[in-house]
Amino acid sequence: MNYRDELDTPSLVVHEEILERNLTDMAEYAKSCGVTLRPHFKTHKTGAVAERQKALGASGITVAKIGEAEALVDAGVYDDFFIANQIVGPLKHKRLVALMECATVRVAVDTVDVARGLDGAMGEAGTTLDVVIELNTGQNRAGVRPDEALGLAELIRNEMPNLRVVGLMTHEGHAGATIAPEGIVSTGVAAGKAITETAEQLREHAFEISVVSVGSTPAAKHTTTVEGITEMRPGTYVFNDNSGFRFGTKPEDCALRVLATVTSRPAPDRAILDCGSKALTSDKSVGREGHGYIVEYPEAEIISLSEEHGWLRLPESAQGMKVGDKVEVIPNHVCPAVNLQDEIYLIRNDEVVETWPVIARGKVR
Amino acid sequence: MNYRDELDTPSLVVHEEILERNLTDMAEYAKSCGVTLRPHFKTHKTGAVAERQKALGASGITVAKIGEAEALVDAGVYDDFFIANQIVGPLKHKRLVALMECATVRVAVDTVDVARGLDGAMGEAGTTLDVVIELNTGQNRAGVRPDEALGLAELIRNEMPNLRVVGLMTHEGHAGATIAPEGIVSTGVAAGKAITETAEQLREHAFEISVVSVGSTPAAKHTTTVEGITEMRPGTYVFNDNSGFRFGTKPEDCALRVLATVTSRPAPDRAILDCGSKALTSDKSVGREGHGYIVEYPEAEIISLSEEHGWLRLPESAQGMKVGDKVEVIPNHVCPAVNLQDEIYLIRNDEVVETWPVIARGKVR
Repeated sequence: MNYRDELDTPSLVVHEEILERNLTDMAEYAKSCGVTLRPHFKTHKTGAVAERQKALGASGITVAKIGEAEALVDAGVYDDFFIANQIVGPLKHKRLVALMECATVRVAVDTVDVARGLDGAMGEAGTTLDVVIELNTGQNRAGVRPDEALGLAELIRNEMPNLRVVGLMTHEGHAGATIAPEGIVSTGVAAGKAITETAEQLREHAFEISVVSVGSTPAAKHTTTVEGITEMRPGTYVFNDNSGFRFGTKPEDCALRVLATVTSRPAPDRAILDCGSKALTSDKSVGREGHGYIVEYPEAEIISLSEEHGWLRLPESAQGMKVGDKVEVIPNHVCPAVNLQDEIYLIRNDEVVETWPVIARGKVR
Repeated sequence: MNYRDELDTPSLVVHEEILERNLTDMAEYAKSCGVTLRPHFKTHKTGAVAERQKALGASGITVAKIGEAEALVDAGVYDDFFIANQIVGPLKHKRLVALMECATVRVAVDTVDVARGLDGAMGEAGTTLDVVIELNTGQNRAGVRPDEALGLAELIRNEMPNLRVVGLMTHEGHAGATIAPEGIVSTGVAAGKAITETAEQLREHAFEISVVSVGSTPAAKHTTTVEGITEMRPGTYVFNDNSGFRFGTKPEDCALRVLATVTSRPAPDRAILDCGSKALTSDKSVGREGHGYIVEYPEAEIISLSEEHGWLRLPESAQGMKVGDKVEVIPNHVCPAVNLQDEIYLIRNDEVVETWPVIARGKVR
């Protein structure tokens, strides 16, 4: 049966052909430039996608929370994790130690107190943890400034015997890109230079820096052009979304869509979809108005969301839309949209061929 | 043990004393004005809160999706539902018929095609469905205009033998309110007049209109001052949130908070919390900047969210905030924040006394 008839709505559907193309493209890119691809799990939170990433050469994976790693261990898919986040507090330290008993783990640190907490917990557990210093290369979220990295590294080396500084990471989520006549121009290169120069500085002070890790899908193929980057951690590339359009992503690159139904036609220029903020999230798309891209009616705008309603403004060309019609919406931001549902339906030749549990949905801790 | 030590973060905590005050206040208000309180389940999605609402006199409940009603039936809590939404498509019709076998159900209709679909499904099942015409009283989301209601009602009466028009509903979510010298002034009254006048018009045409139903917490005590309203459907009142501050809600009225941990102090005026858009959602608060209200540091602003990071800007008075400190954040919009987690922790005398599963979390269909 055609998946659009079979599935109730709103549902998450993934078109396998697009997914495979996205997965292969990034895996080949990483190989071509000699950078390890350690994809971020947070986008798909799904064991089956993680397995496909592994089959394409990603022997380790990135997570944002211990709970995501625990889900992958339970599913038996991965045992090599980079937790690209600060791990704070005794409850999380205990879970981290348990995770380290069945997996290889490294974590980020950016604040002395975070490092001291980890060092104490590792000392109590009688083990050693590899840490990666998080660098602020311009996003101004977490991370030390480049001129502070050496100081933190030396403090850890001198005062925290249970931690071992093995590298540097940054999340260059701020890296803007513009489509210029000469192609896409990204500021990711500046972030790449900041982190590789800092890595050199640490090496000059006898640190063995084996990891120089960058993140973010939009900047992925820009930051990694800088010599000295060893690892990339893109997440969104598996599915892509509406937020990538400004970097050249096209609807046909977007593997995941929210299948939705038109549930009301209260006025000629207005329609209601059964996907609201509890299906699409309220995340905005930088540079694009509206709350998603409707594949069948790109000219229709999702002007507003309430929890269970998507409000469409229809130009004349889209006013043939009828109650009961099904459409596919490319979300503004695919990662939190996936996090709202329990399963993803895999589509091949217009049929549902697999149902994937979103194993780390809601693993917010 | 104190709940702030016991619980890992980010977690949803509900302060029982505030919850009980909110529940009792609205139940007493409804009784005082002779209006049936049929609370909206979408806010808490939790069996235990639904039970408390029932104990306080709410014999029926409102849901947005069939899946929410199914969760309540499975939990054995309610068997009287108003689905305040359009039910469209054969898959949902089948579930609606199944639900009607074990519960009293009425649903909204606002479009001829929606009504025809329901009528056909009821005919096939050999049963009759009570429907309530959804009226657009100014929100311009779903709903017929007041001057269209009679036409739709007559079409249903004349052509759809398996449906019975029993009332009218509106969601006056647009109803603005301002705090004026004479108190809070709301445009909900205009919505109330529109729906009661339309009800009178239908009665003049021999419709037995027993339900005149209004929704929305901010307007709840304004719309219902209009003579002729029979039912109110507030949802958010159980917990309240940051979006209610403009209507006079105070932090001490907000029962649900996201318990979060400071995980990074990358600069004197910057801190990172472990709650991002996957815990707080990206919903904005009308009239208030930022992404939530920090109870312990109201002067600190959550200036941005990424998925697992809340970015704080700290004025000097809040710069004592340290890594590992726990704080409580009142979300901008509590309903979608609840929908992100599997459980709510009930707090009494600073201890966790119950853990409530969010039984309808993710029941988006």
